[in-house]
Amino acid sequence: MTERITSNQNALLRHIRKLQSSRAYREECGEFVADGFKLLEEAMKWYPHIKTVVVSEGLSLPTLPAEVRIAEIPDSLMQSLSSMKTPQGVIFTCALPRRKAAEVMGGMLLLDRIQNPGNLGTILRTADAFGVPVLLTNGCADPYSEKTLRASMGAVLRTAPQSAELPEILSACKERGIRITATALSETATDLRQTQIKDDLVVIGSEGQGICQELLAASDRQVIIPMQPRCESLNAAVAAAIVMWNMKY
Amino acid sequence: MTERITSNQNALLRHIRKLQSSRAYREECGEFVADGFKLLEEAMKWYPHIKTVVVSEGLSLPTLPAEVRIAEIPDSLMQSLSSMKTPQGVIFTCALPRRKAAEVMGGMLLLDRIQNPGNLGTILRTADAFGVPVLLTNGCADPYSEKTLRASMGAVLRTAPQSAELPEILSACKERGIRITATALSETATDLRQTQIKDDLVVIGSEGQGICQELLAASDRQVIIPMQPRCESLNAAVAAAIVMWNMKY
Repeated sequence: MTERITSNQNALLRHIRKLQSSRAYREECGEFVADGFKLLEEAMKWYPHIKTVVVSEGLSLPTLPAEVRIAEIPDSLMQSLSSMKTPQGVIFTCALPRRKAAEVMGGMLLLDRIQNPGNLGTILRTADAFGVPVLLTNGCADPYSEKTLRASMGAVLRTAPQSAELPEILSACKERGIRITATALSETATDLRQTQIKDDLVVIGSEGQGICQELLAASDRQVIIPMQPRCESLNAAVAAAIVMWNMKY
Repeated sequence: MTERITSNQNALLRHIRKLQSSRAYREECGEFVADGFKLLEEAMKWYPHIKTVVVSEGLSLPTLPAEVRIAEIPDSLMQSLSSMKTPQGVIFTCALPRRKAAEVMGGMLLLDRIQNPGNLGTILRTADAFGVPVLLTNGCADPYSEKTLRASMGAVLRTAPQSAELPEILSACKERGIRITATALSETATDLRQTQIKDDLVVIGSEGQGICQELLAASDRQVIIPMQPRCESLNAAVAAAIVMWNMKY
């Protein structure tokens, strides 16, 4: 049964707008929202928790599970509801995955306070492509924001990133003898080309500030990606890609 | 001598707005515009063609060459002039570099119709960091747009990317015996890990469509970045970074 919604003030559309704009609201409701047919297709393949699908009148949907709520809205409403420049005509919500204790292990990428949703999404996309598990500190951008989902091309739906508090991560590493390798722009860091990092927990720091003091201090060693002296740094998603390439291959 | 401008309709501010929004106008005037102190600093170090600097009242500027035109505007005008969410209070223009014939050579990255200014800027930033020269086909986004300049973190000012028409590139490769290696998602492509690409002209294709037919047909071979089968592709800037890492190291 497809509902028809014609008012901008409808409760479902208000709910979706709040899911789009507020991480706190997403976490309170245990629900997130994504935009576009490509992501819907990925969700149908990999993510068994679709709750609601809102579609522009006249567009056809793939066959959805019976429990999914489906609503049709006029295209003018879709234009104002979608946060994309060129709305594709479909917006859907899913239940957030249940939060469980992170499994800290070697061969994992740890993201420390990555702020930019585009960077975070791109890193998760690359990690999924290379098969590298990712752990987020709690200071990272929300992996379930629309921008991150879009930049990840659905990777967030295929492989849920794990999150943990820093003390928890550090004590797990100590307990299990996992070496922590920090990527850093310091002079004492060893060249990535000369360093075997496959079994480490490798840390990428935030765009502006790099890795936090506590994590740097707890690291067993630092590596640097070699670059021309006149360059200050690489984009965080690029640095993460180079690091993951070296972890896997 | 610092001018003071208080009207939004002032000719210089109108000129800057057109430079911000139109590539055709930038090329017609031979001038481009950039935003922020960080880029101004990079331009002063690396790019000897600064023409005009517009600054918010009360902010101090570094010492600029005598021929640079300097204008002060109220902060309210800066807020409306700047295209950044949080304007830093300085906008400046530079002469575009004189266009000269591209020097096609081995060990170069060729970008085929990269459309996204953020991707293009990130690729140019990585190329500058790794010391890989970049050649753009004429279908690429403008390296001198504000967004590309910003994503490049000033790399465009340090190393001017070269552009050329495709037939010109192909005939230069033929003449000089430069091997063209296309990155592609095809089944016949060889694994990047098993391929020596240091001396090649290596092609990265556009975000949506990959490499154009003509260029694919003219390529000597194809390489693929290995990834999990369920992933369709990598972000273009990430793919370019992995390729450049393998070209240099």
